[in-house]
Amino acid sequence: MSGNKERETVRPEKIEERSFSIINEELEAMGICLDAENGPVIRRAIHTTADFDYAENLVFTPDAVKTGIRALEAGAVIVTDTNMARAGINKKKAESLGVEVFCFMADPDVTEEASRRGCTRAAVSMEKSASLFGKDASGMPPVIYAIGNAPTALYALCDLIDEGRIHPALVIGAPVGFVNVVSSKEELIKRQNVPSIVARGRKGGSNVAAAIVNAMLYQAGKPEKEGGR
Amino acid sequence: MSGNKERETVRPEKIEERSFSIINEELEAMGICLDAENGPVIRRAIHTTADFDYAENLVFTPDAVKTGIRALEAGAVIVTDTNMARAGINKKKAESLGVEVFCFMADPDVTEEASRRGCTRAAVSMEKSASLFGKDASGMPPVIYAIGNAPTALYALCDLIDEGRIHPALVIGAPVGFVNVVSSKEELIKRQNVPSIVARGRKGGSNVAAAIVNAMLYQAGKPEKEGGR
Repeated sequence: MSGNKERETVRPEKIEERSFSIINEELEAMGICLDAENGPVIRRAIHTTADFDYAENLVFTPDAVKTGIRALEAGAVIVTDTNMARAGINKKKAESLGVEVFCFMADPDVTEEASRRGCTRAAVSMEKSASLFGKDASGMPPVIYAIGNAPTALYALCDLIDEGRIHPALVIGAPVGFVNVVSSKEELIKRQNVPSIVARGRKGGSNVAAAIVNAMLYQAGKPEKEGGR
Repeated sequence: MSGNKERETVRPEKIEERSFSIINEELEAMGICLDAENGPVIRRAIHTTADFDYAENLVFTPDAVKTGIRALEAGAVIVTDTNMARAGINKKKAESLGVEVFCFMADPDVTEEASRRGCTRAAVSMEKSASLFGKDASGMPPVIYAIGNAPTALYALCDLIDEGRIHPALVIGAPVGFVNVVSSKEELIKRQNVPSIVARGRKGGSNVAAAIVNAMLYQAGKPEKEGGR
């Protein structure tokens, strides 16, 4: 199934379509049936990683995808914890919806404060987002967090939510790794009042966080959400 | 082993160290012993993805890692096929060695030519790199290709190599996906005269390509390459 070593002739504009039909075939062969709302997000995560674990790992609060799409259509602000995730989000599509993507990780004030307080830049960058886009900033667009690296970013978000300092439209929790990654995601999942899409377990990454955003971007602005992708 | 849901207190500067010691423990438990040259690259790919498949997937031509490190120390040019991989490469470390990272995917001339010829931007962007850094450009630094997305980029590189138009110091072949990905990597592996690091199979990605570069960057400029990372 996965061992094809012969080159297939596929026109550039058909490569993605062909990829998704292979993904669909293999999901079917595995007996996995994805629902119409979450399927496009799951398929795109698999497309980005070639890792079918995402068919099982991704967990969604009810209507999380719909909520995310609506936020994007309303010109959401996206905050990420890596410049890699930021680079992976489809800029053309985001701009067409008036969506802006921010990453504060490399900001000198973030670095300075993290070093002074002995915490991570990821945590401080989330606090910075709260002061810029939090509840006191009136007339702000909805905020989507796309976390693809640091569990400390996710922990910081949980604290900011508990303190009522942020009210995210959606949190994408896809940090990756070995230290506090699993637990940070479980903390987010506990907060069922916050719309979230979480890559449960150790896996995730900037590429996965960006893929989840893109799956919703590609559906935004369309009259009807089909289950196609 | 992977199911720890309790938060562990780890100082920010110790998180990476703790992650690598978990990776080492689990590799040992799996009976996998990595050699001193390739181990740091493999461990960093696992660190980036939380996917132990990379302990088996990554294949190296003899001395590929040493060759890559030497090229970086000589101020190599790195060419990638995604802006995401470019964003994931440690800029500070690269700059300290005089290493520049290029991605031509979004260049208007690349888009225009790809559309005119009915091929991918990835393929055209590789040809552009050949005209900029290829064998006719005398006095050029060594070139490392870091391919994390498009198999068509890898096929284009194989053609350029066969035509003698490029002589890469190293090719990192980590495209990801379902259409021609497996075969493109096998094509590169066939060219054993070209130093390469390949993520065999479907898996890979911009994050993996960047991680492989970073693993070498972190060893560059050190008097002795230890097997630590």
